[in-house]
Amino acid sequence: MGVCLRWRGLGLPLPGFRRCELHTVHEASVPTPPHWLAERLGLFEELWTAQVKRLASMTQKKPRAIKISLPEGQKVDAVAWNTTPYQLAQQISSTLADSAVAAEVNGELYDLERPLETDCHVRFLTFDSPEGKSVLWHSSAHVLGAAAEQQMGAVLCRGPSTESGFYHDFFLGKERTVRSSELPLLERICQEIIAAAQPFRRLEVSRDQLRQLFKDNHFKLHVIEEKVTGPTATVYGCGMSVDLCRGPHLRHTGQIGALKLLTEQELFFFHELSPGSCFFLPRGTRVYNALVTFIRAEYAQRGFSEVKTPTLFSTKLWEQSGHWEHYRADMFSLKPPGTNGPDISQSGHPARCPKDALALKPMNCPAHCLMFAHRPRSWRELPVRLADFGVLHRAEASGSLGGLTRLWRFQQDDAHIFCAPNQLEAEIRGCLDFLRSVYAVLGFSFHLALSTRPSGFLGEPHLWDQAEQVLQQALEEFGEPWDLNPGDGAFYGPKIDVHLHDALGRPHQCGTIQLDFQLPLRFNLQYKGQMGALEHPVLIHRAVLGSVERMLGVLAESCGGKWPLWLSPFQVVVIPVGTEQEEYARQVQQCLQAAGLVSDLDADSGLTLSRRIRRAQLAHYNFQFVVGQREQSKRTVNIRTRENRQLGERGLAESVQRLLELQNARVPNAEEMF
Amino acid sequence: MGVCLRWRGLGLPLPGFRRCELHTVHEASVPTPPHWLAERLGLFEELWTAQVKRLASMTQKKPRAIKISLPEGQKVDAVAWNTTPYQLAQQISSTLADSAVAAEVNGELYDLERPLETDCHVRFLTFDSPEGKSVLWHSSAHVLGAAAEQQMGAVLCRGPSTESGFYHDFFLGKERTVRSSELPLLERICQEIIAAAQPFRRLEVSRDQLRQLFKDNHFKLHVIEEKVTGPTATVYGCGMSVDLCRGPHLRHTGQIGALKLLTEQELFFFHELSPGSCFFLPRGTRVYNALVTFIRAEYAQRGFSEVKTPTLFSTKLWEQSGHWEHYRADMFSLKPPGTNGPDISQSGHPARCPKDALALKPMNCPAHCLMFAHRPRSWRELPVRLADFGVLHRAEASGSLGGLTRLWRFQQDDAHIFCAPNQLEAEIRGCLDFLRSVYAVLGFSFHLALSTRPSGFLGEPHLWDQAEQVLQQALEEFGEPWDLNPGDGAFYGPKIDVHLHDALGRPHQCGTIQLDFQLPLRFNLQYKGQMGALEHPVLIHRAVLGSVERMLGVLAESCGGKWPLWLSPFQVVVIPVGTEQEEYARQVQQCLQAAGLVSDLDADSGLTLSRRIRRAQLAHYNFQFVVGQREQSKRTVNIRTRENRQLGERGLAESVQRLLELQNARVPNAEEMF
Repeated sequence: MGVCLRWRGLGLPLPGFRRCELHTVHEASVPTPPHWLAERLGLFEELWTAQVKRLASMTQKKPRAIKISLPEGQKVDAVAWNTTPYQLAQQISSTLADSAVAAEVNGELYDLERPLETDCHVRFLTFDSPEGKSVLWHSSAHVLGAAAEQQMGAVLCRGPSTESGFYHDFFLGKERTVRSSELPLLERICQEIIAAAQPFRRLEVSRDQLRQLFKDNHFKLHVIEEKVTGPTATVYGCGMSVDLCRGPHLRHTGQIGALKLLTEQELFFFHELSPGSCFFLPRGTRVYNALVTFIRAEYAQRGFSEVKTPTLFSTKLWEQSGHWEHYRADMFSLKPPGTNGPDISQSGHPARCPKDALALKPMNCPAHCLMFAHRPRSWRELPVRLADFGVLHRAEASGSLGGLTRLWRFQQDDAHIFCAPNQLEAEIRGCLDFLRSVYAVLGFSFHLALSTRPSGFLGEPHLWDQAEQVLQQALEEFGEPWDLNPGDGAFYGPKIDVHLHDALGRPHQCGTIQLDFQLPLRFNLQYKGQMGALEHPVLIHRAVLGSVERMLGVLAESCGGKWPLWLSPFQVVVIPVGTEQEEYARQVQQCLQAAGLVSDLDADSGLTLSRRIRRAQLAHYNFQFVVGQREQSKRTVNIRTRENRQLGERGLAESVQRLLELQNARVPNAEEMF
Repeated sequence: MGVCLRWRGLGLPLPGFRRCELHTVHEASVPTPPHWLAERLGLFEELWTAQVKRLASMTQKKPRAIKISLPEGQKVDAVAWNTTPYQLAQQISSTLADSAVAAEVNGELYDLERPLETDCHVRFLTFDSPEGKSVLWHSSAHVLGAAAEQQMGAVLCRGPSTESGFYHDFFLGKERTVRSSELPLLERICQEIIAAAQPFRRLEVSRDQLRQLFKDNHFKLHVIEEKVTGPTATVYGCGMSVDLCRGPHLRHTGQIGALKLLTEQELFFFHELSPGSCFFLPRGTRVYNALVTFIRAEYAQRGFSEVKTPTLFSTKLWEQSGHWEHYRADMFSLKPPGTNGPDISQSGHPARCPKDALALKPMNCPAHCLMFAHRPRSWRELPVRLADFGVLHRAEASGSLGGLTRLWRFQQDDAHIFCAPNQLEAEIRGCLDFLRSVYAVLGFSFHLALSTRPSGFLGEPHLWDQAEQVLQQALEEFGEPWDLNPGDGAFYGPKIDVHLHDALGRPHQCGTIQLDFQLPLRFNLQYKGQMGALEHPVLIHRAVLGSVERMLGVLAESCGGKWPLWLSPFQVVVIPVGTEQEEYARQVQQCLQAAGLVSDLDADSGLTLSRRIRRAQLAHYNFQFVVGQREQSKRTVNIRTRENRQLGERGLAESVQRLLELQNARVPNAEEMF
């Protein structure tokens, strides 16, 4: 499902693209390898043979000598369209030839088996370098794709490497997704492909040939139309599988050695019966709630007031706010209640139909305006800072939905500040400080940009001047570097864009600080000023996490499953040494749980103690509490961290206390600080 | 708005009917007293004169002697249709005549000025008795109604007494509600009516006369049709105002002495732009979140896993669950996304329309079934206890909406337990224990009833037998009294109904424990049993608070504004003795706030210290922290409780710590335990 929706959206940028979580709801029979697999392979072999012949004839007719520079300054002679980087590596040393995974040729990445064409500088990549790792993982993704094609008749979509491994999206039909129980079989087929040391064969083909090869894969056809800009492109054959790919790849699958399909952390899943919405499993909900609790604690410190507002509003509200004019295509509207079918007449609810049409809120601001307006306000109350974690719905084109990044349903750490003009600067400074504090805890760096008034702005120029000055002043005082984007503000007010970089250096757009002169006018918001006259407040829209769902996705990927203690869905696992300690281990687990910590028990007597400890560390439990006879008799626990640092024996109560302290302090390295 | 919706629903039972929260969004001009007020009064005077003449002629023509028995055993002579209870009270003592507010005549409540008709027992009610209080408050409500008619042209709806005062609902036109700033004027008019000592005049009228009197009040006309069953009914005149009412009333408005319109606690409000949904203001959100946090803490102790599930689902889900067949008239369905108007073609979202129709979830159970089914399950995992505070929408007939009791949008402390049949008894015991713990903290007593299989039940009789036995067994062991309601279960399973009584002894239905054999079959839920075969789990639906919104309403009314510390939206107010301590007072307030406590500052230098303390106590702040020069220099606070108990000087840090302890322990009497 997630996959099916995802590939249609490839034309759009997909920041923070997340490894797909795949499941089946209903068991489905395993299809035999589909006919197109053989057809595609047949065509590939035909074209491959032609390419081999073409290259051979090129060198045989008129061999051309070229000069190769190697990193150490060596120069060697070679033959164009014939000599390969692998041959050069062998000339240098067999160790290099064995450990190299690809080559860099004049700055371009090459397969080790791809013939060199011209004079060039060649550098070899091994697994030790990030580029080398990326090649190994990318080739591993191809192996997984090949296995999925063979085993499940999967239609392959994307299969890239990531910073710490790889994933592969594929489409199995509307009702079918991969179950975790199927992973072992898939893994076994991958191992067979690896054991067979199948070569990766690079083939250059025309657009027409490409279309012919992938005529049964709508995803690839889409990519061909959208992404393949030149007259030719490359595909790679590996065993039975052929895939559209820029490369480079390993020489053969045997170089992978081993491959492990990790069962995901059971944080969330998607289901076709609720498109664009995420189901958060217990561990995902744990992370979600920890993020919300964090922001709530900041709200308490910073004078924000949390409120709860409805989900459904009359379209009259959206007319008043302007959303109906500008945003209605992205809103979900309701049928009049009670019109769901034949039993209306039996329902006995004649008064069910309200006069107004209703729509689900895509944003909280109009509800907060109603709240500001619900009674007279005085300057003494300002600033009023209303925060809301309300459920929002936006009808994103289903083709652009993707993981936690683009959803129909999500929640924001949304707040609206209603303040007097002379409070604006202090409020903006407060917002910037809020951003910095939260991002510091999350381990993000960020960059700010001020967007000023566009052509066609609404409102009075002198108000804009004043506001832009105030924002600039606040940014200056804040002391972080910032850019100016003249003319890039919204028509209703200037804004500060926040670009953050996660722990892996990848950019995300999450937070925002936005001024709004228009909404207070549209809702005729007023307060009695210090001199007694009614005045309009200025409105600031701001969010720090942005969508909680998206932030959770960013964090999940940036920590690669190794959550900091305070967010972790795998805080402690309790491991009894033997069955005699199982009861005590259970008590320890419940004691942790009752204190609000996530704890599990691994009393699997089928595994040795060290295997269970290793398993817990692979699952990234921050701490392992091992309990043997000694610990039981003294009511202590023996503590290890997920990096296998042994902290030794500690009192149970004292350990729980320490974990709570570290959790509440939201430290990034609780394992070191314990 | 709330009022307008409410009066249409009078034909239905309205448990926990809450004092209306009234506000205006837009200022509206005050109308002159409407013409119908004078017309109605004219007709009343005409009928009143006729009644006075009729009674006079009855006694003059042929006076009839009757015997009156008084409580002390006295017997006195009287004249039918002439002697009044007030005259009898005067004969006994002037103190009694002054302190009595009504009489009980042969068990029926009488005005003191209503002539006795026959031999009878007479007992006098004073304000000391609950019935006497009720009369005083009911008469006060009439005074408020009269003031609202005169001042605002209000159409009067209900105006009953409550356990601790009274309220009056009235309708001011669609766009108009009462603003808190209008309360002082309304209160002044009430005081004028009280000062005028206007008599309450009881008039018996025919149905036709009733209709004539209230021809301008649709609410009363509705009540006349629905509730007035006899040929005659009574109305009461009081000053300019005439109202349909059973009575009894005070002799005259002067007996009220004083009347205070309390500004509400700013917990929540309703708005016509979001019918059936509540806006929770910061203080209401505080109470709401405290309730949710409480249940979350219980979940951690009791092995429940919180999850988050979507709001919108394909109607296919509701077909599968059976809701579409049985419940669709109460569900909100969506228009296909992207069909909101002319800008679809410009939106560039061709893929926006999903194939399925979507509806808002009215319950969480089907989503939890999808979650159970999303991967294979083993007996080792059971019981799986999934808890969800998800937003639910149910299309209650808008006429039956009422305050927090019946809403379109609400959240539940909903959980579903999937367990093996042999775990059922332990789970039911756990559910009962959960109920008892929570209700004890909330100060509720409760009564249980077991409802067994109805005719037309679905499923196998032996499963029902077994389940009913298990429930009965669990109830027996639980040790609280319970009733048997044979045949009252749902068609899909037996259930335990929970009737609770709040601190004022009023009944509410909130929690439930319900077995379900059907849903696991409809969703084909399975787990691998201990012997390897696939088995269906049993499903338990359970809730303790029920709707969080409704529970908040029940608690608000039952505590009468005096919230226990842990729920309180008014925990501490900090009061500086003089302006020199304002800065320190602000520090104290922020220190409390940063610790997560609700604290306010009252630095109003226009009021004396004692007036500000009194004001805080009237507003029911659990604690007042007074800070003078001494406290500032020593970083202490001087503490009083809302009952004006003086706890004296304490260290600031120590006081914050103590408040947190009492809050976390959820004690009912933090003011005594501090």
